[in-house]
Amino acid sequence: MSIKLSLKKKLDALFNPRSLAMIGASRDPMKWSSIVFSRILSGGYSGRVFPVNLKEKEILGLPAYASILDVPDKVDVAVICTPASTVGKVIHDCGQKGVEALVVITSGFSEVGREGALLEEEIVSIARGYNMVLVGPNTMGIYSAEPGLNCLMAPVSPLPGKVACVSQSGNVGTHMLFLGRTRALGFSKFASSGNEGDLVFEDYLEYFGDDEESEIITGYMEGVDPGSRFVEIARDVALRKPVIIYKGGRSEAGTRAAASHTGALAGSLDIFQGVLRQAGVISASSNKEVVELARTLELQPLPLGNRVGILTRGGGWGVITADACAEAGLEVVRLKDETLAGLDRILPSYWSRGNPVDMVANLSESAYIDCLKIVAQDPGVDVILALGASTEDQMQDIFQAAGRFGGLSSEEIQQMQESHEQATEKMIETIIALSREFNKPILSVGRPFLTHEWNSRLQMITEPEEAAQILAKMADYAKFRQSINSMV
Amino acid sequence: MSIKLSLKKKLDALFNPRSLAMIGASRDPMKWSSIVFSRILSGGYSGRVFPVNLKEKEILGLPAYASILDVPDKVDVAVICTPASTVGKVIHDCGQKGVEALVVITSGFSEVGREGALLEEEIVSIARGYNMVLVGPNTMGIYSAEPGLNCLMAPVSPLPGKVACVSQSGNVGTHMLFLGRTRALGFSKFASSGNEGDLVFEDYLEYFGDDEESEIITGYMEGVDPGSRFVEIARDVALRKPVIIYKGGRSEAGTRAAASHTGALAGSLDIFQGVLRQAGVISASSNKEVVELARTLELQPLPLGNRVGILTRGGGWGVITADACAEAGLEVVRLKDETLAGLDRILPSYWSRGNPVDMVANLSESAYIDCLKIVAQDPGVDVILALGASTEDQMQDIFQAAGRFGGLSSEEIQQMQESHEQATEKMIETIIALSREFNKPILSVGRPFLTHEWNSRLQMITEPEEAAQILAKMADYAKFRQSINSMV
Repeated sequence: MSIKLSLKKKLDALFNPRSLAMIGASRDPMKWSSIVFSRILSGGYSGRVFPVNLKEKEILGLPAYASILDVPDKVDVAVICTPASTVGKVIHDCGQKGVEALVVITSGFSEVGREGALLEEEIVSIARGYNMVLVGPNTMGIYSAEPGLNCLMAPVSPLPGKVACVSQSGNVGTHMLFLGRTRALGFSKFASSGNEGDLVFEDYLEYFGDDEESEIITGYMEGVDPGSRFVEIARDVALRKPVIIYKGGRSEAGTRAAASHTGALAGSLDIFQGVLRQAGVISASSNKEVVELARTLELQPLPLGNRVGILTRGGGWGVITADACAEAGLEVVRLKDETLAGLDRILPSYWSRGNPVDMVANLSESAYIDCLKIVAQDPGVDVILALGASTEDQMQDIFQAAGRFGGLSSEEIQQMQESHEQATEKMIETIIALSREFNKPILSVGRPFLTHEWNSRLQMITEPEEAAQILAKMADYAKFRQSINSMV
Repeated sequence: MSIKLSLKKKLDALFNPRSLAMIGASRDPMKWSSIVFSRILSGGYSGRVFPVNLKEKEILGLPAYASILDVPDKVDVAVICTPASTVGKVIHDCGQKGVEALVVITSGFSEVGREGALLEEEIVSIARGYNMVLVGPNTMGIYSAEPGLNCLMAPVSPLPGKVACVSQSGNVGTHMLFLGRTRALGFSKFASSGNEGDLVFEDYLEYFGDDEESEIITGYMEGVDPGSRFVEIARDVALRKPVIIYKGGRSEAGTRAAASHTGALAGSLDIFQGVLRQAGVISASSNKEVVELARTLELQPLPLGNRVGILTRGGGWGVITADACAEAGLEVVRLKDETLAGLDRILPSYWSRGNPVDMVANLSESAYIDCLKIVAQDPGVDVILALGASTEDQMQDIFQAAGRFGGLSSEEIQQMQESHEQATEKMIETIIALSREFNKPILSVGRPFLTHEWNSRLQMITEPEEAAQILAKMADYAKFRQSINSMV
């Protein structure tokens, strides 16, 4: 199955425009059009930009045009911020101009009632008449990493990366971008689908499924038309790349709110969740989980099963992690005898000889690596939760104290620091290498490193409860892929 | 019910010692004893400190003594870090010296097997013979805000405050302190109860229950002796102040791990959860939730019921918040007609006229306050989730853009900034005042403010799913207090 070429071409133009007109650009910085326009300019967009405004001659140093028809160049995308009543005329002009795709930020359409719905039908039919695609109306905008296009109402500068995102709520979707930024998760493309007068959720999904820049697809959705191609598209895409969706409107109260927000249909929520599962879609339980799942999938292989090995430096952490794994549906397996025997050679005689492997407050990096290797080699272990990988803050404290104790020179302390840095560096490399060698996700749990570069290489989740949920969902998804592939 | 005076006196000495001996202090900064000692000194402890070491004459600038018996002053608390085999003798000396309380950091007792268990019995009986209380052995230490005592193995400097904490895992407990620091949550007292050879979980709980410095009690526990007074103490304390416990060993895998960690008994997990609930203990589902719950309880009144009103600036946020509330067991009520009529006067005609109250991308601070007031006045609403209180990052972006647009002078922009700051300041004050006036918790959901001082005054939770769980647990606890008080 593949996306229709005509649609693909239009969406290519939408996400990689060589030129863009901002219709309704203004000089008043408090207007949404200015907020978006200013973000396009400061975001480093590589194409040409043409502000369109009836009265102004110049905006932000760029010559402004009274109509898009006056723009002395081809325009691929028009971003429209003019009042709702004028949008039809503006779209006519865009069609005349040969624009390929429209981003209609203007609100006041189907979300405000029947009259707005009629207006929406009208503008969509004008756009379609000219063979243009339309994002929105009432969209919060789009983002695309390749041309450096940040065309968003929300104050967020996404990191460029490999994750695509489509959201039926602009606020929720841009919150994912914001969370991604705090977690070193980069995005390839984003669309706030708005009222979906023309382009609908599954159009973006299908396009991202074929998009080589997008390795993981995320989304927030409230509902789809019952007769839509969503399920077959989702299933087809999920076989090739992970699709993570956070679904709003799960409860009666949420559905009521969704009905007034996007007009999503109520009544079949459990069914819908079941449909998502059958389609191989990973169902997230919060925006935060969407982001952590995407980041883990980006950095780690898919597991072969749900049997978890737990490594920890502290007993209590082991207990709550075992609980969290069991509650998430992972199997906290009995380790093989060879594994236990291998660990016996490293750990003190009184170690608990079980899973979790409790290193009993041992702070050594090399012992940690040795234990991790042995657990990773266990053929009965599919995934590993590695707690306490970072001893950075503990060691920083020790180095500071060392200075105070006076027995060591500042050179000696610096040497200790450097050797700890090297040990941590080696540990991070080993974790990554082990996870590749054995094709098992090794998810680190603990406080983030103080060093940004380390955090960007190693996926580290602060709370074991969240980490367990993520591994369990990855295992479920891997099972879906296996089951379908074994049928083929 | 009240704590025995003799025990209270000893615990008073433990948490407010006028003097402290560090037995096994060393000059090697890599030793745990040095780590703890160094932290005591840098933590600003107000009492006198006496390092005890067989060989050294001076440690960290303080005169060292070969035995605690040589210390030329009264010693209230002895922190013991010497090898397990020497601890009995050291405790004898402490008893002779008239020490009141011991913190035995040394490990190698019941956690390592039968022989260690016998050794533990022995040292405990020596301590009891001298009428001393003993924390641990195998404790990660204690913290007490009043004397500025940071006697912890873990690299954390807790903020002083009103929350007490006792943990059957040093790692888990000190992680709560760490999380507290990141969330402006201060602690009054903390104990890592270690192997609980002498003082047990419920001793600390009872003491904190009577402690005027502690308004909220938190804890991590894996198990208690079936015959213990835990349940009656918990119930008694919970009637006076919130008791929030995170329970490890909920699953079979977790229980197995707990058995080898603290020796907690298995087999009655569901029963235990039920017991906690009947005792009015708030059961948390993660360390993070413990901290967020404590902070919310510190800043907000208890609700009168579970009927929630939701205020949001964006439709999608409203949907996921309504879902989260319903799933957490809150009732997303229909707002009263007067409330809707009041909101009609502020919001555009097409607003959804329901709960969540969607302000439809209105960024005004004064409109937000007006809407919040109207929702807070609704007699059918017990608790409020207020999303989007912070527009700070959006406005920062706008101010920057305003500079770029050039139409405004830097003075004008500064004026805009100041007036936005004043509006936010007023909003925060209004939220706090409204929640007091109507005796309803108003929990803000959104990205934290960029301003630290604002964050310290207003409880702001990033994800609505977490906020809903917290409000639901507060409502449950309030119900427990009401039901017991109405019986009396």
